[in-house]
Amino acid sequence: MTVAGLLGALASPDPTPGGGTAAAIAGAMGTSLLVMVTGLAKSKSNTDDEKAALAGARAELEPITARLTQLADADTEAFNAVMAAYRLPKATDDEKAARSRAIQDGLRAATVVPLDTLRACAIAVDHGRAVAAHGNRSASSDVGVAIGLLKAAADGAAANVRINLTSLKDEVFRTATEDETTRVLSAATAAASDAMRAVAT
Amino acid sequence: MTVAGLLGALASPDPTPGGGTAAAIAGAMGTSLLVMVTGLAKSKSNTDDEKAALAGARAELEPITARLTQLADADTEAFNAVMAAYRLPKATDDEKAARSRAIQDGLRAATVVPLDTLRACAIAVDHGRAVAAHGNRSASSDVGVAIGLLKAAADGAAANVRINLTSLKDEVFRTATEDETTRVLSAATAAASDAMRAVAT
Repeated sequence: MTVAGLLGALASPDPTPGGGTAAAIAGAMGTSLLVMVTGLAKSKSNTDDEKAALAGARAELEPITARLTQLADADTEAFNAVMAAYRLPKATDDEKAARSRAIQDGLRAATVVPLDTLRACAIAVDHGRAVAAHGNRSASSDVGVAIGLLKAAADGAAANVRINLTSLKDEVFRTATEDETTRVLSAATAAASDAMRAVAT
Repeated sequence: MTVAGLLGALASPDPTPGGGTAAAIAGAMGTSLLVMVTGLAKSKSNTDDEKAALAGARAELEPITARLTQLADADTEAFNAVMAAYRLPKATDDEKAARSRAIQDGLRAATVVPLDTLRACAIAVDHGRAVAAHGNRSASSDVGVAIGLLKAAADGAAANVRINLTSLKDEVFRTATEDETTRVLSAATAAASDAMRAVAT
């Protein structure tokens, strides 16, 4: 898909692609910018440990871009499945029960996808701390943009988890997912603050 | 350009496209999501004034996506011009003077482009308040993602203005641009907070 096509699809009144997809793509852009900085020639410092930290971050970050691109598509598919479930017939009790199960299954998937997006962004921000600390100083604004996009993506993914959780009836799943969302988002927020401080120094 | 192509270009060790381009695309995604919400059938409320506010926001937001897409390209071109200026010959005094002028001209353009990105994001966030207040409640997470992306884009654009300002010698331009950046970013930050509050209610 082209960038112009993605923007047009986001702007169209169809509910998909929506915020979950945009968040995943923003996270993928942030991750890509971090990968760029790990590939720049001059790092802030030249110790072997610091070079190894940058190389390690690069190896971890590279697959996350592809993962977030997949999750961008998966978010659209999951939400389409929820909408299809809502359109199922509900004339008989059997149909009502089947429709309700399909909606609940769909919502569960539509919750798991943005939670995975949140997790991927949190891992990228975590490695972003090493990039901020040891990356080429001339690219500090690139690192700042990357961390800002990953933080916005993590916030957006968490909002998508939570809005879908509200309609889920499985209370055990709901509580576990809410706890996990809070935990991962807190970790991502803290790591983003660390990275932003390192960029500024 | 495809989304995958953009992500690959951001990740490559070439300095362009970099954070300025990623910020502009993130702002374009946020703007597109706001346009989507203005096009959804059911708004939160049905008064004519509120419908007019949503339609007005839509009319203002639609061209901003294209504007930010142009600025994404312009950012890459401006930074490429700066790098080309740094590669100019500097063997003689005349060459040194010409090179210095070219660098300064390039940096000025590389400052004006992200300032325009910041302005466009600030206008989008400003209209985002009406979308947050009157848009379809079921799309509140989309509005939240949109505002988060626009705020990250505004922050990132401001960081790009400021990093290029540091090497500019024209103190009058530098001061005026720094003041404008601070003013527009403050307005965008306040509007984003307003919009986020409206989404949550």
